[in-house]
Amino acid sequence: MAKLLTGKEVSAALADDLVPRIERLAAAGMTPTLAIVRVGERPDDLSYERTARKRAEALGIAVRRFELAAEASQAELEAVIEAVNGDEAVHGCLLFRPLPPSMDERAVCDRLAPEKDIDGIGSASLAGVFADTGEGFPPATAQACLEMLDFYGIPVAGKRVVVLGRSLVIGRPVAMMLLARHATVTLAHSRTEDAAAHTREADIVVCATGRARAFGPEFFAPGQTVLDVGINFDADGNLCGDVDFDAVESVLGPEGAITPVPRGLGGVTTTVTMAHVVRAAEAACR
Amino acid sequence: MAKLLTGKEVSAALADDLVPRIERLAAAGMTPTLAIVRVGERPDDLSYERTARKRAEALGIAVRRFELAAEASQAELEAVIEAVNGDEAVHGCLLFRPLPPSMDERAVCDRLAPEKDIDGIGSASLAGVFADTGEGFPPATAQACLEMLDFYGIPVAGKRVVVLGRSLVIGRPVAMMLLARHATVTLAHSRTEDAAAHTREADIVVCATGRARAFGPEFFAPGQTVLDVGINFDADGNLCGDVDFDAVESVLGPEGAITPVPRGLGGVTTTVTMAHVVRAAEAACR
Repeated sequence: MAKLLTGKEVSAALADDLVPRIERLAAAGMTPTLAIVRVGERPDDLSYERTARKRAEALGIAVRRFELAAEASQAELEAVIEAVNGDEAVHGCLLFRPLPPSMDERAVCDRLAPEKDIDGIGSASLAGVFADTGEGFPPATAQACLEMLDFYGIPVAGKRVVVLGRSLVIGRPVAMMLLARHATVTLAHSRTEDAAAHTREADIVVCATGRARAFGPEFFAPGQTVLDVGINFDADGNLCGDVDFDAVESVLGPEGAITPVPRGLGGVTTTVTMAHVVRAAEAACR
Repeated sequence: MAKLLTGKEVSAALADDLVPRIERLAAAGMTPTLAIVRVGERPDDLSYERTARKRAEALGIAVRRFELAAEASQAELEAVIEAVNGDEAVHGCLLFRPLPPSMDERAVCDRLAPEKDIDGIGSASLAGVFADTGEGFPPATAQACLEMLDFYGIPVAGKRVVVLGRSLVIGRPVAMMLLARHATVTLAHSRTEDAAAHTREADIVVCATGRARAFGPEFFAPGQTVLDVGINFDADGNLCGDVDFDAVESVLGPEGAITPVPRGLGGVTTTVTMAHVVRAAEAACR
């Protein structure tokens, strides 16, 4: 049985750090406020919106929702982003993606003011992650991976990390963040030949492809740490990760560790999002 | 004997593409113009400046030099960058780095107008490389690596690439550019344990650490392609790469290939810089 890296304790530790900071902001007359911008009513988005609102409420962070119809135009969405940018009472903005295919997603992301880009979607934040300058915010999911490793005391420097998946939401950013922490990082993806040969040699494997239970025991080895970023539904409608958890857990052995899905990185991502809103509010307060 | 990937032929092919484009610009009354901004008189910079001026002249690209004293202030340098930004007759800018340690290099780089950032030093270009959006320009050295591979017909998609060195000038950008071309990419660096174990398994190794002859035969295997980005001087003052060429060449065998230093990537980088100036001029012409 590998060690279970559950998210609850990580979120609690992050929240412990946030509570006094939110109190200090309140004393200064400021309520950290998150704008949630949603186009259409995709069930995934609605589900995450509920989770985020609940978490925000529990922490004393306000949420303003901006809903657009699924057939909204690019101009309508950009007008909402501009309204968020111009509203001093809003400190951070979470935009659900992917946007409808008719929209130019990059243009929308780049319109968001960098100081409110708490999920790291704009070019300024992406450059900050790539160049390791601390500018902007890293994507919350990528940051959640680092919080998970740090909380459970899993070393990164000098370790071999394989990241499966090269998206801008998670694969590439988390690779750069782990590189900045001195890991040796391999980016593997759908075009990689024999990905299992790479992952079996790693100390840490980050699974971020969005393919339900795509990675079975042949991808892993005893003693590894596995971070499963996937939030997928299987054919029976059950929530599951990118890793075939039941088959993989025993392979990792007692020295290994794995994040479950659910109860793993998802909740930590939500809390990291809140932490970014608080940081943005603190910056606006100065 | 491995195949020698010399730069001369690659530069010639790039120049063949540029000549008619420069003629078309001339017909429209425009001379593509490169600004070279140099702080102090470091021998490396002076040497590259001579090379760049010569190459520009041969192609019909104008060069304007902006020289600052080694003790120039940040404000003085930023004023020069602003002058370049505001000068419609200048299409691209090459700023020699590293800047003196007293300066905030990131701030200077980000001041350069993205459309004139032909060596990919600003955040907009870095985000473009990271996100693979085509925004801005990639660093010329990183682009030179891809030109070299393409010219000699060395496939990238699905291949294993190890990049030694993680600088923003070459290591990280070339890794992202090769990833965008569907390579499986490993970023290794000074903190990597047993880098040779990684490089020996690769199809392509990019050496970009700036350490003279740091990589000997134990790092390589038959059939590999080795791109040596290093431009170093050994203890005797001889120009050399990061690879111990004489010892490595025979290891690569007849199926292997390697760029020499000199006569390898350096000249291609200069020509890529000129190609970027022409592209910038064409964009300004529209």
